[in-house]
Amino acid sequence: MGLRQSWVGSANEPGCDFPLNNLALGVFDAGHGRRCGVAIGDQIADATALEAAGLLSLGTPLLTHPSWNALMAAGPTIWADFRVQMTDLLRAGAPAQAKVAPHLHAMQGATLHLPFTVSEFTDFYAGRHHATNVGTMFRGADNALPANWLHIPIGYNGRASSVVVSGTPVRRPWGQVKGPDDNVPRFTPSQRFDFELELGAIIAQPSNGPVSVAQANDMIFGYVLLNDWSARDIQAWEYQPLGPFQSKATATTISPWIVMRAALDPFCAAPPDRETPLLPHLADSGDDFHDIALDVTLTPQNGTPETITRTNTRELYYSPAQQLAHHTTSGCPMRVGDLLGSGTISGPTPDSRGSMLELSWGGQTPINVGGTPRAFLEDGDTVTFHGAAVAPDHRIGFGTCDGTILPALPNPYAS
Amino acid sequence: MGLRQSWVGSANEPGCDFPLNNLALGVFDAGHGRRCGVAIGDQIADATALEAAGLLSLGTPLLTHPSWNALMAAGPTIWADFRVQMTDLLRAGAPAQAKVAPHLHAMQGATLHLPFTVSEFTDFYAGRHHATNVGTMFRGADNALPANWLHIPIGYNGRASSVVVSGTPVRRPWGQVKGPDDNVPRFTPSQRFDFELELGAIIAQPSNGPVSVAQANDMIFGYVLLNDWSARDIQAWEYQPLGPFQSKATATTISPWIVMRAALDPFCAAPPDRETPLLPHLADSGDDFHDIALDVTLTPQNGTPETITRTNTRELYYSPAQQLAHHTTSGCPMRVGDLLGSGTISGPTPDSRGSMLELSWGGQTPINVGGTPRAFLEDGDTVTFHGAAVAPDHRIGFGTCDGTILPALPNPYAS
Repeated sequence: MGLRQSWVGSANEPGCDFPLNNLALGVFDAGHGRRCGVAIGDQIADATALEAAGLLSLGTPLLTHPSWNALMAAGPTIWADFRVQMTDLLRAGAPAQAKVAPHLHAMQGATLHLPFTVSEFTDFYAGRHHATNVGTMFRGADNALPANWLHIPIGYNGRASSVVVSGTPVRRPWGQVKGPDDNVPRFTPSQRFDFELELGAIIAQPSNGPVSVAQANDMIFGYVLLNDWSARDIQAWEYQPLGPFQSKATATTISPWIVMRAALDPFCAAPPDRETPLLPHLADSGDDFHDIALDVTLTPQNGTPETITRTNTRELYYSPAQQLAHHTTSGCPMRVGDLLGSGTISGPTPDSRGSMLELSWGGQTPINVGGTPRAFLEDGDTVTFHGAAVAPDHRIGFGTCDGTILPALPNPYAS
Repeated sequence: MGLRQSWVGSANEPGCDFPLNNLALGVFDAGHGRRCGVAIGDQIADATALEAAGLLSLGTPLLTHPSWNALMAAGPTIWADFRVQMTDLLRAGAPAQAKVAPHLHAMQGATLHLPFTVSEFTDFYAGRHHATNVGTMFRGADNALPANWLHIPIGYNGRASSVVVSGTPVRRPWGQVKGPDDNVPRFTPSQRFDFELELGAIIAQPSNGPVSVAQANDMIFGYVLLNDWSARDIQAWEYQPLGPFQSKATATTISPWIVMRAALDPFCAAPPDRETPLLPHLADSGDDFHDIALDVTLTPQNGTPETITRTNTRELYYSPAQQLAHHTTSGCPMRVGDLLGSGTISGPTPDSRGSMLELSWGGQTPINVGGTPRAFLEDGDTVTFHGAAVAPDHRIGFGTCDGTILPALPNPYAS
């Protein structure tokens, strides 16, 4: 499918993240309170206002609250209808152009908020290169992958309360750590604070029992970039035997625009080769993966952005649908607004790794960022993710997912 | 403090879980829709109706929705005021008795629902005997306690969506398992389905940064009994390295009555001896433990209830306030309605263990229940928790927390 021309000129420009083909969904404030908005070129179409004006009609009002959850809950037929109507309002030659134009706002200058209310957040570990790298560092190359890894998309429950929108500063956390040279644990600001490059899948249909991989795919509304900030030193001390907890609870940043699954359909990709067959309940149901190019820039305080890694969501071993299907095997109810992180997406080469832990190989080989070595993140660093599915004449972009590291607070428990 | 006499006669009877001293909070339906209710003897006072009638006034209406979250969010001053007013309405000789009486409903016959909306659910592992027992089974007596166990209340995030109220049947889950004799994993109904006897703490004040143990204690609104149903075979295969996930996601059952922290103040207990000192941020801040007697009955299908364990919440090594303080160290935001499970509360003796895993020592020594051996739970078994803080002339009871095991569904993925 080629570029769909919009009467919003910037949407037709090469390299634009938000052509008419995308129709990404956000919540914005351009000075008149929070509204549901649709990204188009360098503009945001005020969807709440379009609905109020009768230019967009979804049966019942779904956009009166500044969150996309109501549309999400409305189901796939409404999602498709919404895309048809928005396309018709914004396409080149749209009869309604003059009526829609007053409801556009410059993206620059608008404040973006979380695009949906996160019900619960689960983080998977579905990237094979990442799991292999981390396992090699911690357990040696011969035991890199956990025994279960090729059989189930392992994951853990995270904290929905810690999910923040791109641009929110992230405060370096304190935590209890015990290094190999420590006789007793210490309470300290994390010295090994890190990012994790992930894709977030947004669940928009509930379930109350096990669902198949195909059913799971239909429950996914869209995707965001997701940075699962991680304190490696806190994690190393706390994670046995119950898994990551406070090391992952400071913040999880998501990009502000939901890219709907429908926008990514032309960029579906086949599953990876399976080293061992998956059991039937997790078997591949189709081309449920996506070809989305990802990169990360790191900008030191007062420095210039430097790209430190490039990878692709095709590096995932388990699709979001497989992650979700596994999530329901026990009967675990899923709800509208559940967010599933993919786990870190690393590629096979050293320059395609999705975390500082891997890029610096546990801190042993710091990378060069603007002339200074970086093993983990320093105060003032800004980490920025970019992602886009790329066609010859357009791209379906996610915008950016960024956060700046603030220094740790003084010891919150000093007397 | 002795028994406070109520004009509701059943509240003054020995052995009653709900004397005037308790004022436990639930959501009930006695045929007129869901309402906020206060347990008094064998009756429920319709607090929603009392507020609507002007007999209970909390500044703004807080009980119009069938959930106690609004009162919880209102803060400690309102919580205390609420208890004063309810006591005044229900005490012997209350001037308002005639006006209140029409708003009482028999507890028997009323349907009880979740008393609050669970924001997020976290499960700790704060019982030393339980951690020692499980560790001994899995790693041997010399390495029973994980290295971090005496230094932090380790825990993991659970699923709020799976929290159900007492009485809700629990369906035996399917899951992927791989036993020691299996060459490859299998997808099967759990054969080692279990209960875990826990105390649940309800967080009712938000935080947005680290809080001290003393501050944490003030954020706790009340307590429920909590059964963290666990599929041990699924857990054994999935839990490395990210912790329990689907093994704990089928259901978590809570008792229907919130016992407010104020009701338990007379039953505060001192911390246990500390084998190693806790770091300052987790140090004991006072008598934050409680003396609450617990027991579990197991009722086989068509059988009679048999008490299979007796223990006490004093067996916890970390208080709920310490659990909560640790939860916030990273800056993790807490919200009104967060639920913290204590972890399994086992005592030091074989007949005080809080799970079948421990009672049957991993299935090796099944216990006798009504003449038949039980290693784990069978279909049709009903597990019932009881809990009460016991004074010479009254008790602060929790009611019961029960669930009956339904057989697994047919293979949900059979083609």
